[in-house]
Amino acid sequence: APNLESYYKTVDSSADAFIDRLRKAVEIPSISAEDERRQDVVKMGMFLKSQLEGLGAHMEARPLGKQPGKEHLELPPAVIGRYPAKKDESKKTILVYGHYDVQPANMSDGWSTEPFKLSIDDKGRMYGRGSTDDKGPVLGWVNVIEAHQKAGVDFPVNLLMCFEGMEEYGSEGLDDFIIQECKPGKFFSDADACCISDNYWLGTEKPCLTYGLRGCSYYSIEISGPGQDLHSGVYGGTAQEPMTDLVRVMGSLVDTDGKIQIPGLYELVAPLTKEEQALYKNIAFTMDNLYESIGSQTGIFPDKESTLMGRWRYPSLSLHGVEGAFSAPGAKTVIPAKVVGKFSIRTVPNMEPADVDKLVYKYVQSVFNKLGSKNTMKCYLQHSGKWWVASPDHWNFTAAAKAVESVWHTKPDLTREGGSIPVTLTFEQATGKNVLLLPMGSSTDAAHSINEKLDRRNYIEGTKLLGAYLHYVAEEPAT
Amino acid sequence: APNLESYYKTVDSSADAFIDRLRKAVEIPSISAEDERRQDVVKMGMFLKSQLEGLGAHMEARPLGKQPGKEHLELPPAVIGRYPAKKDESKKTILVYGHYDVQPANMSDGWSTEPFKLSIDDKGRMYGRGSTDDKGPVLGWVNVIEAHQKAGVDFPVNLLMCFEGMEEYGSEGLDDFIIQECKPGKFFSDADACCISDNYWLGTEKPCLTYGLRGCSYYSIEISGPGQDLHSGVYGGTAQEPMTDLVRVMGSLVDTDGKIQIPGLYELVAPLTKEEQALYKNIAFTMDNLYESIGSQTGIFPDKESTLMGRWRYPSLSLHGVEGAFSAPGAKTVIPAKVVGKFSIRTVPNMEPADVDKLVYKYVQSVFNKLGSKNTMKCYLQHSGKWWVASPDHWNFTAAAKAVESVWHTKPDLTREGGSIPVTLTFEQATGKNVLLLPMGSSTDAAHSINEKLDRRNYIEGTKLLGAYLHYVAEEPAT
Ligand SMILES: [Zn+2]
Ligand SMILES: [Zn+2]
Ligand SMILES: [Zn+2]
Ligand SMILES: [Zn+2]
Repeated sequence: APNLESYYKTVDSSADAFIDRLRKAVEIPSISAEDERRQDVVKMGMFLKSQLEGLGAHMEARPLGKQPGKEHLELPPAVIGRYPAKKDESKKTILVYGHYDVQPANMSDGWSTEPFKLSIDDKGRMYGRGSTDDKGPVLGWVNVIEAHQKAGVDFPVNLLMCFEGMEEYGSEGLDDFIIQECKPGKFFSDADACCISDNYWLGTEKPCLTYGLRGCSYYSIEISGPGQDLHSGVYGGTAQEPMTDLVRVMGSLVDTDGKIQIPGLYELVAPLTKEEQALYKNIAFTMDNLYESIGSQTGIFPDKESTLMGRWRYPSLSLHGVEGAFSAPGAKTVIPAKVVGKFSIRTVPNMEPADVDKLVYKYVQSVFNKLGSKNTMKCYLQHSGKWWVASPDHWNFTAAAKAVESVWHTKPDLTREGGSIPVTLTFEQATGKNVLLLPMGSSTDAAHSINEKLDRRNYIEGTKLLGAYLHYVAEEPAT
Repeated sequence: APNLESYYKTVDSSADAFIDRLRKAVEIPSISAEDERRQDVVKMGMFLKSQLEGLGAHMEARPLGKQPGKEHLELPPAVIGRYPAKKDESKKTILVYGHYDVQPANMSDGWSTEPFKLSIDDKGRMYGRGSTDDKGPVLGWVNVIEAHQKAGVDFPVNLLMCFEGMEEYGSEGLDDFIIQECKPGKFFSDADACCISDNYWLGTEKPCLTYGLRGCSYYSIEISGPGQDLHSGVYGGTAQEPMTDLVRVMGSLVDTDGKIQIPGLYELVAPLTKEEQALYKNIAFTMDNLYESIGSQTGIFPDKESTLMGRWRYPSLSLHGVEGAFSAPGAKTVIPAKVVGKFSIRTVPNMEPADVDKLVYKYVQSVFNKLGSKNTMKCYLQHSGKWWVASPDHWNFTAAAKAVESVWHTKPDLTREGGSIPVTLTFEQATGKNVLLLPMGSSTDAAHSINEKLDRRNYIEGTKLLGAYLHYVAEEPAT
């Protein structure tokens, strides 16, 4: 095992400087969803680039073109880099990804502290937008490089970096860029494995390595009839109402216990093996964890195993809402002329998105046909992203597991996630290499919510972990 | 029959001046729903008051207090008046109502002409917000007074006027005011009958008198579960979703053909008599009228009679929308924590609102119970207004029918309406007298929509009609 003592000590003694680095980053409101903040997103990218250049990395800010649909807006650049600047051919090359943009945040949303000022409380909780998503983890890589230099420890791998500034707004332009730069002779072409730190522990105490994500297929059901919205007093009882048809179709998709009603859908799901079933028992998770995070006791299953399987390895269907109907507070007596119901299916191995589409269209059409309505119905896919599952036996994962044991003195949980991180699949497909999700923050960090935070402990031990991971990677026999 | 020739001729020769009066009124954007237009609403009230004072009427602008929920805003006044200024005890007294506020309108909504400029095309269609709803009819009463003076014809009745400036925003403050002013010794206490010109012909060619309106009971179904909105990736398949329950409950209320599924509801409806059934045959209405006005062929019934009964004399249930769910264009993968479904029931004789409430609550609760959900459901009434039916045999109606024959050379259709005009019931109850709805505009006037218009013919002949109505009222034997 590598001797990491002096590296760990240097991280501890640099903790204040590292927190100061995070403070500076949080103060740049790099909100990718807001046009008027675009210059702050770019500023944040430049901050990141200059921090890494200051440590001797070779960095480039690569333009990604105009923002689709907003042609007056330039996309923030992909900030990519290599450390050490000159490749050491004797070492493995690890490609890491993170994003330097953040979700919107306003004091008026209910924040207890200024969202763009890092506020540390007496329990070491560091509040601020982007603290855990994803500025803390991104700066973790910067800290790793700096701590190695300060400690005089040889850097164990070639590090390739890919940091984007549009993740919270659909990663516009990034997929094509990654695919291009993974081609032979290009910037990312020599990656041996990938590591993404942009998700969270399942709980608050036990680190995890994440090897699977669900996919997502998002559908619209559009039902229209009258040429314009009608007054329900004048036309109620004489015209067929699209909204009546829509709630009936939407109501046929899933039941209260989350059971999807679309025939054939569950047959696409990979069967549960004895081996996989056994894995769930030991995961650090309790029903109280669920109840705490959803803020109620309204779970579907009474037990941990079913709940984790419901999140990770079975599909789910959620009804998100209706476009075109009355949605404000108060009372409006409109008959909407055209309504669009939105729902999505979280997909899992081995559901092929195209097969899911076919079953959905067929079922929705059959339910609508049974209504005998004169209205017009269209069901269509808005977007879909495929599920992803990596092999946790790969050296990329075993190295990370050893690093967790070294830093946290416990074996990590091997987890999957219910949500999707589309860039994961892009990296896997573009590099053809193993991708590891190595989270820094914990389940209570409230990414995307008010009072987002990163615990000091997670940031500092997380920096140790990222560095240790690279050392164990260097030691693992390549496959 | 009264000799109305010189009055009619004077109306014709004053047509340009009357249109000019409407032009001035349309140019005042008296939008009651927009705070920043409140001064224009007041300005319009003052315009109306000064026009009538110029003709010798006794006018008062009565304050109605602060706007509930917007305490910085003064409600526009009730502009009330009496003509002639001194009561002639030998004549009947007719209380007329109208409103001087209008719906919002913006060029960007799709208007073909400036909404606050009266634009007259070569077919005599006078486009402009408020032209038909309700500035044209209100100014009709002003025109009636002026034409009598110009023609030197004795005014046949005592006219009491009640014009409000908040009709399009819920008639805030008006009900209490009317009830007060109808008490003995107060401003409206000596009304012998009421006339409201604020609705429309059933079609475009045949005038009508309206003697019935449906009521409206507006309900919310609120279903909540999680403490906050959840991400469908993380929690889909593990938490019960309020939206799933809501669409199932909403889907159980009414079917595609408008048949209400609430047990017992139709039993509250007054049975159809042979006499009533016979009335529908002769009404000037065709299925093409329906298809044209809804802009599609998606009617419930194939025939005129069933369609008119569906609109006028049977209840209907419309699903208006969902509050709290995702309602914007695009895709958002939220699981809403709390959703509120909105629906309303149009009520008819003899449905008592309290009985309807009871049946609704019982049924919604039973459907929700069957779901076996851990979520929490509340169903409650937002507001209700009762249906109204007047006696069309009253002298108020027979006078109006004779006036229609005199002006339009045809017997009017006796119609009911599917919508509600709550002030109608208020006047009936506060005065204890017969209320007549005497429309000026036609079914194609597009009140509340873009390109609202009033046909020149309807405005000028309508002015004749309002005056003729007062003369026939004077002749009818009082009951
Ligand atoms: Zn992120
Ligand atoms: Zn994020
Ligand atoms: Zn009106
Ligand atoms: Zn109106």
